[in-house]
Amino acid sequence: MERCIEKASHKNLTQLELLAMSASYNLSDGHARQSLTISQQKIIAGLPDLFAQSMREPFEELERGAQRALLHALGQYSYPQEPGRVLSCYASSVAMVILARAMVDTVSTVALVHPTFDNIPDILRTSKFDLAPVEEEVLHEGDLVANVPPEAGCLFITTPNNPTGRVLTADRLALAAQWCAERDALLALDTSFRGFDVRAHYDHYAVLAESGCRYVVIEDTGKLWPMQELKAGFLVSSPNVRLPLQLAHTEILLGISPFILSLVRSLALSVAAEGWTELHQHIAMNRTAVRKILSETQAVSSPDPDNQVSVERIAVTGWDTRELWSTLREGGVEVLPCCQFYWAEPERGAPYLRIALARDHDSVSVGVERLRDLLLERA
Amino acid sequence: MERCIEKASHKNLTQLELLAMSASYNLSDGHARQSLTISQQKIIAGLPDLFAQSMREPFEELERGAQRALLHALGQYSYPQEPGRVLSCYASSVAMVILARAMVDTVSTVALVHPTFDNIPDILRTSKFDLAPVEEEVLHEGDLVANVPPEAGCLFITTPNNPTGRVLTADRLALAAQWCAERDALLALDTSFRGFDVRAHYDHYAVLAESGCRYVVIEDTGKLWPMQELKAGFLVSSPNVRLPLQLAHTEILLGISPFILSLVRSLALSVAAEGWTELHQHIAMNRTAVRKILSETQAVSSPDPDNQVSVERIAVTGWDTRELWSTLREGGVEVLPCCQFYWAEPERGAPYLRIALARDHDSVSVGVERLRDLLLERA
Repeated sequence: MERCIEKASHKNLTQLELLAMSASYNLSDGHARQSLTISQQKIIAGLPDLFAQSMREPFEELERGAQRALLHALGQYSYPQEPGRVLSCYASSVAMVILARAMVDTVSTVALVHPTFDNIPDILRTSKFDLAPVEEEVLHEGDLVANVPPEAGCLFITTPNNPTGRVLTADRLALAAQWCAERDALLALDTSFRGFDVRAHYDHYAVLAESGCRYVVIEDTGKLWPMQELKAGFLVSSPNVRLPLQLAHTEILLGISPFILSLVRSLALSVAAEGWTELHQHIAMNRTAVRKILSETQAVSSPDPDNQVSVERIAVTGWDTRELWSTLREGGVEVLPCCQFYWAEPERGAPYLRIALARDHDSVSVGVERLRDLLLERA
Repeated sequence: MERCIEKASHKNLTQLELLAMSASYNLSDGHARQSLTISQQKIIAGLPDLFAQSMREPFEELERGAQRALLHALGQYSYPQEPGRVLSCYASSVAMVILARAMVDTVSTVALVHPTFDNIPDILRTSKFDLAPVEEEVLHEGDLVANVPPEAGCLFITTPNNPTGRVLTADRLALAAQWCAERDALLALDTSFRGFDVRAHYDHYAVLAESGCRYVVIEDTGKLWPMQELKAGFLVSSPNVRLPLQLAHTEILLGISPFILSLVRSLALSVAAEGWTELHQHIAMNRTAVRKILSETQAVSSPDPDNQVSVERIAVTGWDTRELWSTLREGGVEVLPCCQFYWAEPERGAPYLRIALARDHDSVSVGVERLRDLLLERA
C-alpha cells in the first residue's frame, strides 16, 4: 500500500496541479474553468462600468453588500453583523493563514477532518500545530466524545469536504458545536465548496449561535465562478471568538480590491435572482458523463455516490494509481492522485483519483474517455 | 517621549489606515488612489477584451510576460530566468508571509532595517523570529560588520524605504550582499516603492548575482497604479537560495489571476513606452504643494529632503503628534502617526507624521491646508 507515497516524491497537491496547468485536458485542480454563462458574459462586458462604480462607492458599503449578497445566496442569513466579524481576504487560503497566525499563541492541537485537501494540514503544520486526524465517519456518524482528542483547542471541518463531497448535517454540526462549547474549543469550518450542494445551504450560523461555541467559518467564492481567480475569501468569526483575527488580518492586508468585491456582489446577486440550478446542472452533467463513460470498464467504482461538489473521486482497482496518473499525463490528461488528501495516512488514498468537473463538457468527456481507453487496453 | 505609544492603543499602522478609509481627506495609506491617467483609462475601457484574451493565453506565457514587462520597466534586466525563480503572489505582504514560512526552520534572527512599515516586523514576530534593528544610517553609511549582529540568518532591507524614501545605492547593496555572502546569510529586499525613484532602477540583480549571496527580492505593483488593489507581488529568489519557497507558495496558492497578470503587463508596457515621468511628476507636484503649504508655519520641517516615493514624512515641533493626528481626524483629514514605523523604539517616531501623496492634487492640498491652519491657530 505504499505505492503512492514512494513515487509522489514529496509534492503537495497544488504542485501536482501546477504540473497540469498547460495540459490539453486539465482535470486536475478544483478551480472553475468552464465557459461563462450568458449572465456572466454580461457582467464581464460591463467591467469598465463596474470599475468606475466601485471607485466611487464607499468601501464599507461595498464590502458589506458583497458579503451579504454572497452569504444570503448561500442561505447564510444569521452570520454576525457587528463590524469586524467578516474579514475579506484575497483567497480562502489567505483566510486560513490568518486563522493559523491568530491561533498560534493559544492553541496547540488541532483536530482536523481526515481526509481533506492537503493545504489545510500543511498550513497548520508549518505553523507548528500538532494535528489529530478525525475521520469523516466520526464527524458524520460517530461518537465525537470518544474519538476527538479532548486536548484539541480547535476542531476543523471542511464541509462539503474535498474530495468526498460529504456535507455535515445541521444535527451533526450542532453536535460538533456542542463538543466545542463544552470544552471552550474553537470550531472552524471551511465551506469553500458549499455553493455546489444545497444540503449545505441551511443556516449554519443559526446553529452555531444557538450552541454558544466559539467559531470561525471560511467562506469562499474561488470555486464557484470561472472568473480567472478574481475571488474573495471571507473569514467569519463569532463575537466571543477571543482570537486576534483582526490583528493578524491587518498584518497582511488593508483591504481586498473594491473591484473584486463589486464583481462578487454582481455574481452573487445574479445567482440570487436565477438560482444555483445552471451551475448545479453543469456539474451534474459532467458527473453523469464521468460515471457513464467509466462504467464501461470493470476497474472503476464511485466511492462517493452522493457527492455534488465540482470534483469526483473514483476508485480504481488493479492499478497503481500513481502509474495510472503518470500514464494519463503522457496522453495529455491531468487528474489528481489522492494519497495527499489522506494527510495522516497517505497510503489510504492510493486506490483513488480525483477528477475536476468545473470544466466544459467536451474537456471532461474526452479526458475521461482516454482514461477509460487506457483502463480497457490494460484490462 | 512616550506620548505616542501611550495613546496609540496597540493599533498597527494598517488598523489606523482602516480608520481612515471613509474620511473626506484620506492621506493615510500608501495605496495609489489618484485618478487614472489617459493611458490607464484606455486600459480600463478594454477590460472585457483583456478578460477574453487572458482566458485564451497559456498561463505560463502570460505570467512570464507580466513579470518581464514589470521588471524591465523597473530596470531589472538580470533577474533569474529559471522556472520557479519568480513566484507570483496576491500581494507583497503575501510574498512576505511565504518568505517567513520558508525561513522558519533555518533562520532564527532577522536583522531588519529600522524604521520601516510595521507589517514587516509584525509578520516576522508572529512567525517567532528574533528581530535585530539595523538603523538606516548603518545601511547607507555605516559599518555593517560592526553593526549587524553576526548571528543574523537574514538581513532584510526595504529600499526605497517607507516612510523615509531612502534608496540603497549599488555600492551599499554590494556591501550588504558581501556581508551576507561571507556569512551564508540571506539578503532580503522589499522594493515595493522602487517605481517612484529612478535611483532604485539600477539592475539590483546584477549586483546580487555578482556577490554570489543567497537572496530574495519582493517586487510589487501595489503602490504604483490606482487599480483598486488589482495587483501582484513577486517573490524572486536566487538559484542558490536553499529555502522551500515553492513549497510555502503552493501551500497558499496555485496561481494568481491571469486577468490581473494581463492587466499588470498592460500597465507595465504602457510605462515602458511612455516612461515614469507622468507618475513622478504627479507625486512631485503633490510633494511640492505639501512643503509649500506647510512652510507657512514654523512648526514643520522635512526630515527626508531627497524622498521621491509616494509618501512624505514631516516633523512637527511643539505638538504631541498623536493629539495632532486625533484633532485632524475630527476635521476629516487622515494622516499616519509614525511611532509604529520605529518598531524597535516607537518613541523615536513621535515627532513625525506621514502624508500620502498618491492622491489627486486637490485632496492633498485641501487636507494639508487644514493641517497648516490647525498649526497656525495653536501657534
